[in-house]
Amino acid sequence: MEQIQEQDVLQLKAWIHGKQPMEVRNYLSTLMPADIAMLFEDLEEEERLIAFRILPKELAADAFVYFDNEIQEDLIQAFNDVELKEVFEQVFLDDTVNIIEEMPANVVKRILRSCRPERRKMINELLQYPEESVGSLMTIEYIALRGSMTVRQAIDKIRKTGMNKEMIYTCYVVDDQRHLEGLLSIRDLLNHTDETPIETFMETNVISIGTHDDQEQAAQMLSKYDFLALPVVDYENRLVGIVTIDDAVDVLQEENTEDMEIMAAIAPSDHPYLKTTPLEMWGKRIPWLLFLMLSATFTGMIISNFEDKLAAYVALTAFIPMLMGTGGNSGGQASVMITRGLSLGEIEISDLPKVIWKEFRVGILCGVTLAIANFGKMLLVDRYLMHNPDITILVITVVSLTILVEVIAAKIVGCILPIAAKRLGLDPAVMASPFITTIVDALSLLIYFQLAVAILHI
Amino acid sequence: MEQIQEQDVLQLKAWIHGKQPMEVRNYLSTLMPADIAMLFEDLEEEERLIAFRILPKELAADAFVYFDNEIQEDLIQAFNDVELKEVFEQVFLDDTVNIIEEMPANVVKRILRSCRPERRKMINELLQYPEESVGSLMTIEYIALRGSMTVRQAIDKIRKTGMNKEMIYTCYVVDDQRHLEGLLSIRDLLNHTDETPIETFMETNVISIGTHDDQEQAAQMLSKYDFLALPVVDYENRLVGIVTIDDAVDVLQEENTEDMEIMAAIAPSDHPYLKTTPLEMWGKRIPWLLFLMLSATFTGMIISNFEDKLAAYVALTAFIPMLMGTGGNSGGQASVMITRGLSLGEIEISDLPKVIWKEFRVGILCGVTLAIANFGKMLLVDRYLMHNPDITILVITVVSLTILVEVIAAKIVGCILPIAAKRLGLDPAVMASPFITTIVDALSLLIYFQLAVAILHI
Repeated sequence: MEQIQEQDVLQLKAWIHGKQPMEVRNYLSTLMPADIAMLFEDLEEEERLIAFRILPKELAADAFVYFDNEIQEDLIQAFNDVELKEVFEQVFLDDTVNIIEEMPANVVKRILRSCRPERRKMINELLQYPEESVGSLMTIEYIALRGSMTVRQAIDKIRKTGMNKEMIYTCYVVDDQRHLEGLLSIRDLLNHTDETPIETFMETNVISIGTHDDQEQAAQMLSKYDFLALPVVDYENRLVGIVTIDDAVDVLQEENTEDMEIMAAIAPSDHPYLKTTPLEMWGKRIPWLLFLMLSATFTGMIISNFEDKLAAYVALTAFIPMLMGTGGNSGGQASVMITRGLSLGEIEISDLPKVIWKEFRVGILCGVTLAIANFGKMLLVDRYLMHNPDITILVITVVSLTILVEVIAAKIVGCILPIAAKRLGLDPAVMASPFITTIVDALSLLIYFQLAVAILHI
Repeated sequence: MEQIQEQDVLQLKAWIHGKQPMEVRNYLSTLMPADIAMLFEDLEEEERLIAFRILPKELAADAFVYFDNEIQEDLIQAFNDVELKEVFEQVFLDDTVNIIEEMPANVVKRILRSCRPERRKMINELLQYPEESVGSLMTIEYIALRGSMTVRQAIDKIRKTGMNKEMIYTCYVVDDQRHLEGLLSIRDLLNHTDETPIETFMETNVISIGTHDDQEQAAQMLSKYDFLALPVVDYENRLVGIVTIDDAVDVLQEENTEDMEIMAAIAPSDHPYLKTTPLEMWGKRIPWLLFLMLSATFTGMIISNFEDKLAAYVALTAFIPMLMGTGGNSGGQASVMITRGLSLGEIEISDLPKVIWKEFRVGILCGVTLAIANFGKMLLVDRYLMHNPDITILVITVVSLTILVEVIAAKIVGCILPIAAKRLGLDPAVMASPFITTIVDALSLLIYFQLAVAILHI
């Protein structure tokens, strides 16, 4: 694979400014649409328009889909009506809808005006589905056949009408009312003789999804069943569209990014990192930071309550960060594994008892290991090596016991929270990571001070 | 979509024990292979073998690929040689290799013995590629054509030889030495008349990948370019295989899970959550917990060093958890965004200066907001509402200033660490999240105590 290099950009700029359109055209024609889009990001607005106009029509439309929304908007504003029409006649319907969804109203109007009335109607229908729904992700450019057709008739229909359809390798068989009856692949067609009616060999056992289901569900089904496309039906099982694997991959990647951001206490964002302004980032990061900072008031209050006792045993303070860190890490491990398991469909809400029982055992194993390690470390390092007279065997016992109890508690809280969130219809990732630390922090301190009071009699 | 329900399992078990093979066969034939695999997980070993033997041959082989490794091994152990042959004749070559890679030596021998010599040779070749390499992911079941063929000859060849190939929708054109010359899709074939030589319209501008490249790179290229398959070439640009989109999706999902686990301080695991024993989980989680616990010794030592001063100003202790939490969250936000950006290819190592400059500005924005919020909160809540005489304006200033400085420092450390890790050839996710907290914790405490000494003159 050849990556776009800085000298490629410089060379391209030189050709543009040197008025050498053939060089620009020849060079860009060797690139994939996605790479042209990356290259265009590094051009100035005017250079971009010049280069875009030099591109072969089809390649220009293919690359257009990969541009950032801002670049798309700039280009559309600069297009005349003929150019606009040329581009959007080539762009697939679902991509057109995706672009329209991100554009300001005046641009949307221009795009819609440039389309033929029939196409405009289809776009308007697709725009009505809620964001994140299967309807908003699907394309309606698929191939529908009738069961009574022969293989030859089916191939002829694909040849005649299929060439502008997004996915021609899976064809759908519908009845008069467009009810989904079956599906077949080009592979199946090629595998049978010309005169065979397709209903004799089509797959009638069809997996489909509804227009109002979540697009993430469609993506996961495509991934689970290894399909290239998934048919989408309305409430009456009439075929209305398909979701293709390339769009499903994009959805999966976006959902993964979103989960990671939420687990790191960031409000999810659609923009790539380098395209986001510091102010936008601040907006995405500050709500959770503020919330978590203010909720730490509780941990502060717990410490304040034990202030007199801490003053008597100042040595105990030194272990607070370690105890809170260990609790937070233990709980975070559990919550992230459960959140991921829920999102991959490996764990269901009904698995809660199994999960708690498992985390309880993991908690005991981890807690005992860490408590023993801490006991040894405090005895050796703090007591003998550093000759700290405050670190008595009783203090070591308090700290080690706290680790044991808090790790078990953290594992159990960490596995319950995401499942409870899912049960309540919330995003498990939200409840999981940012929340868990606050709760486990408070829990750890309470355990610590209770054990200290009980064992050290302070 | 119909989910597998508990009553489906019970019904299936009843049929198996009631010796009603036709019911079993009819019911299972309505399911997708991936769903049969899920259902089989809930059967006992003996029930599973009975049900598997009742399945139509082709469906049985299709479902076999989706079983867990343990179930596959159990079944293979129970198969006689004829059954083994029947299954592995149907399974695609790359899936066979994946299965073999997870089986103990005696099972591998039986599988290889059941294959025809020619196929056995291909399997052995594929087994030699390093794990995680493109070679170990690719399949060698693709369609290769010659440029001089006409459309009719190409379609005939696909009909004759292509039906057992995994991906027939993209065909590759090679010369005598199997050098990759071009590619074309079935769509292109159907779009041209029977007598056209395919070299006149094939795409010669082909993106390919090497056998020894990382499989994650192949997956990302398939996702970036929206391909259904990616050709794989050896060092001399000879076509040796293809990577298909369904395998690429699996790789992307595995890599995402791995990144999330590493960010949560867990050693990555291949097993689904519910299949992992508590002891295995302990093994994956305890190394980082131990390391992080012991490295917290440093934060403990910093506190011990300031113990006398803390004893004089005990009120300062109450804010340690909040300060460490805020620093850790701020750094974690930056490191997770950068790690994800690196993994999606949105950020390159050379972007480091841009990234630091951006995080510096985000750090100032977040730091100022949090410092002001904290100042107001401490003034109102701690000083006036709770009448805590120890919370002087100077103490409030120390805490608020610490927040400002630590947030900026955490953002910068958080963005540098993952990029530095990548530069050193390490996994950015490892360096990022687990490490960041330890470093930022120590940093926050040092800033806190230095400011306390300077401002409070203790």
